[in-house]
Amino acid sequence: MSLVYVQNFSVSLDGFGTGQGTSREAPFGHAGERLHEWMFLTRWWRERSAEPGGSGGVDDAFVRRHDVGIGAEIMGAGKFGYPGWHEDPDWKGWWGPNPPFHTPVFVLTRHVRAPIEMEGGTTYHFVDAPPAEALSMAREAARGQGIRIGGGAIVIRDFLARGLVDHAHVAVAPILLGRGVRLWDGLEALEQNYAIEATSSPGGVTHLTFTRRAP
Amino acid sequence: MSLVYVQNFSVSLDGFGTGQGTSREAPFGHAGERLHEWMFLTRWWRERSAEPGGSGGVDDAFVRRHDVGIGAEIMGAGKFGYPGWHEDPDWKGWWGPNPPFHTPVFVLTRHVRAPIEMEGGTTYHFVDAPPAEALSMAREAARGQGIRIGGGAIVIRDFLARGLVDHAHVAVAPILLGRGVRLWDGLEALEQNYAIEATSSPGGVTHLTFTRRAP
Repeated sequence: MSLVYVQNFSVSLDGFGTGQGTSREAPFGHAGERLHEWMFLTRWWRERSAEPGGSGGVDDAFVRRHDVGIGAEIMGAGKFGYPGWHEDPDWKGWWGPNPPFHTPVFVLTRHVRAPIEMEGGTTYHFVDAPPAEALSMAREAARGQGIRIGGGAIVIRDFLARGLVDHAHVAVAPILLGRGVRLWDGLEALEQNYAIEATSSPGGVTHLTFTRRAP
Repeated sequence: MSLVYVQNFSVSLDGFGTGQGTSREAPFGHAGERLHEWMFLTRWWRERSAEPGGSGGVDDAFVRRHDVGIGAEIMGAGKFGYPGWHEDPDWKGWWGPNPPFHTPVFVLTRHVRAPIEMEGGTTYHFVDAPPAEALSMAREAARGQGIRIGGGAIVIRDFLARGLVDHAHVAVAPILLGRGVRLWDGLEALEQNYAIEATSSPGGVTHLTFTRRAP
């Protein structure tokens, strides 16, 4: 049975998973790259660009789990593209010809289109389905490996609220965005269903992990 | 010159400093005591009740700073009493005849009344003044010692937004309240004026510290 994961989803101290004013030029709106700077400083990130250096501490340990044991990803339309991407027949995501997923990716959207096969094992499937149904499709595609709920904030919040996530990792960056899309809305008393741990890193990021309690 | 501190102010993961539905029976609304449970588990708390035990780790180290070097506190009307306390001439705060402040306390309220002298050095002064002006009064009363901005969330946010705080310590408890009074509203880009550190404790609390940058 596949387990369901949220990995390395970054929010600001005030809980925003993306900024305001997202566009093709500004995928995270006024947040820019600031939510993800902690990742760029890790060894993991440097290795992906075949560069030396990078920090090898707790940030690296967390971010590195992205690559292992995942057989499918589910993402929202707002992660896959800029507002209005569905009107662009050539849009194939932000990640170039060889995206970093290397698995089937299920894009939740009301504007379905034919699947897009990319290099390196990533295939984008466009589905108009509620969370549990999308999860069934991803489960079949994952062939026993894990399923990543890739974001954005609204998608993660939906899956968490329905108790569909087994393990979630949220990285809280030491910035205040003030506006954007909130991760935590509608998750009152989540701690009753999830054991929560906090691990801070020297860079100021706090890694929160949520582990679903046995029923 | 007195420095200005926020100490041990607790918020939920989703940023609420108090719950919804505060009343005389429920000072923190639906949050109950859950924001402050981490304090009750420390050695510091036990010592105040002359009880043995309690944890001696990072939570204790932070909470213990409450008692040292403070010469005055500023608090909001919502910390001093329940909604409507100003209509009760006998209301003298939540803390009994010997409150844990032991200094002058300036209560920001539109409903001023004569000062109330309590046991143990606490005197409540009721002032209808904007933050900077209240701070001047507290500074005079503190005689060179520190000034604590005691809360609630709105008061802390007001003083932080105006750059009036030198050192702030916010404890993030691993619960999601979903509703209440938010601490972080209106503090966009606070990291430009404050260096932010995060320290997590084994109990799941994350201690955030904000240190004002040199101008």
